Amino acid sequence: MVPAPELLARARLLVAPELSASLVRELERITGLGAEPLADEVPGGGPLLCVGAALPGPVGAAERLVWFHSVNAGTDPLLAAGPWPAQALLTRTVGRMGERIAQYVLGWVLAECQNVPEYAAQHARAEWRRFPTELVAGQTALVYGTGRIGGAVAGLLRRCGVRTVGVGRTAWSGPPPVGFDRVIGAGEDAEAEELAGARWVVAALPSTGATEGFFGAGRFAAVRGATFVNVGRGATVDLGALEGALRGGGVRRAVLDVLPEEPAAPGDPVWRLPRTVITSHSAGITADEDVARDFAACWEAVREGRRPGLTVDVERGY
Amino acid sequence: MVPAPELLARARLLVAPELSASLVRELERITGLGAEPLADEVPGGGPLLCVGAALPGPVGAAERLVWFHSVNAGTDPLLAAGPWPAQALLTRTVGRMGERIAQYVLGWVLAECQNVPEYAAQHARAEWRRFPTELVAGQTALVYGTGRIGGAVAGLLRRCGVRTVGVGRTAWSGPPPVGFDRVIGAGEDAEAEELAGARWVVAALPSTGATEGFFGAGRFAAVRGATFVNVGRGATVDLGALEGALRGGGVRRAVLDVLPEEPAAPGDPVWRLPRTVITSHSAGITADEDVARDFAACWEAVREGRRPGLTVDVERGY
Repeated sequence: MVPAPELLARARLLVAPELSASLVRELERITGLGAEPLADEVPGGGPLLCVGAALPGPVGAAERLVWFHSVNAGTDPLLAAGPWPAQALLTRTVGRMGERIAQYVLGWVLAECQNVPEYAAQHARAEWRRFPTELVAGQTALVYGTGRIGGAVAGLLRRCGVRTVGVGRTAWSGPPPVGFDRVIGAGEDAEAEELAGARWVVAALPSTGATEGFFGAGRFAAVRGATFVNVGRGATVDLGALEGALRGGGVRRAVLDVLPEEPAAPGDPVWRLPRTVITSHSAGITADEDVARDFAACWEAVREGRRPGLTVDVERGY
Repeated sequence: MVPAPELLARARLLVAPELSASLVRELERITGLGAEPLADEVPGGGPLLCVGAALPGPVGAAERLVWFHSVNAGTDPLLAAGPWPAQALLTRTVGRMGERIAQYVLGWVLAECQNVPEYAAQHARAEWRRFPTELVAGQTALVYGTGRIGGAVAGLLRRCGVRTVGVGRTAWSGPPPVGFDRVIGAGEDAEAEELAGARWVVAALPSTGATEGFFGAGRFAAVRGATFVNVGRGATVDLGALEGALRGGGVRRAVLDVLPEEPAAPGDPVWRLPRTVITSHSAGITADEDVARDFAACWEAVREGRRPGLTVDVERGY
């Protein structure tokens, strides 16, 4: 699956049209190749190395594709377009995404504890009144997803005194990974207990067949006053179940960075969920420097015949 | 200045009327004394131990006052009421104030990085649009005040990757205290350099004669795009100078928890400072459990003839 170095030496570099000129220059510098536009039809021969967000159909199907580097961390749109060509390596950009998403989560957590939106609104009314604030230290956060993103989120919350419980796909044995006070498996009895005691439930799950609608009525029924934050994928949440839990009061508030259908149109009922803020898929933005840095690391690995650490397991979906 | 244990054994416990019934019960439990109301006139004799926020004049002047425990951390209103009776110990409640104020500062810092008020407003318009977010890691924060509060603020910011520079009253030699990457003295050349490079300027100074108007036109002129956060005392800021710096753009935004005159009336021009939020002196609220805990620690020290760690230096003012 990792293209042989001699194949790479003959490869052509195709870049998506939405990439910035400075990023393209950087990719040319790293590879020593002249960039060509990634399009539906790529005339001529030679193995293809592509950098972009989506795979134009005919190119992807072609056996010439040896490596695709995604400028995003989430590769589900790429994989949903059809079976991934077996011969092609797929790598992705993670960048400082873990760090960015962690700061997003902590920012919204503390904003709620400190009543930031309420103070901003009160200020506009020239009103002097204290709201009770909350100390986040000592509270519990359940973080669904114990990989790079979930681990970064938990690690930052933990540095602020939050007790962090990771929820993974399967039972966990041994000491919890860095950033977590405890790790449990989804569906274990401990999950419902921890959901009941949590002040924060953070979803950082990838979108795969197994995670669709993962946060449904059953899980939300176990929540007793936690705020739900989704920084993973919108498809992992059953919005009807979330609405029920918000209306019933089990879920205190929701902060949704992602939705099943993005962007949400102005008339979408999702805007009318009670006590909810939608943040337009901004938590884990990828900067050009992130793409260049992660691509360079993959390039170095492939040149040496190693499997890059940022390789996507196309079966697992991330 | 520390009342002799035999004096304490004969003392009467006077509590301010605003204290909650449960806190009063706790104070009675700690001291073994029955609480009486703190009022202008206290008939009868005996040494007086008072717990409250302000000192009624005649009681304070009386030589009978042996100890006053402030339910607040800031004792400037107490000390401003007249010369402090020389024979009386003054202690204060710090509680988890450092931790609370630190979370307030980090909350407002991250709220700005994550555009929390902007997303809240945009959500209300059912609008899907990304704002650029900022990573706080790697940025510099100048923290004025290197004591308990300043140290707690710096420590928490530092755990989120912020470079923290403390500014103290005097030059600092030796390694910086916990939480700080560097400590400098106010007025040193390094101060202007650090102000120019800072993304955040956090004021955590007590109100004393020496700090009145400390943040004036001179200091603000050195700021190049930092957001100014005041969690100390309002009197330390020259509001006219701050307004000039906000209008000129040197100061990016301001978050003011404290003002020279509190509460601000609805017509107060301070509400019209550009890009400013006022948060009604809420950052360092003191909970009943904080008062009880800190008073108990002082009580134990005094009973053993030690000077409590929470003793106020009435000359210095904190």
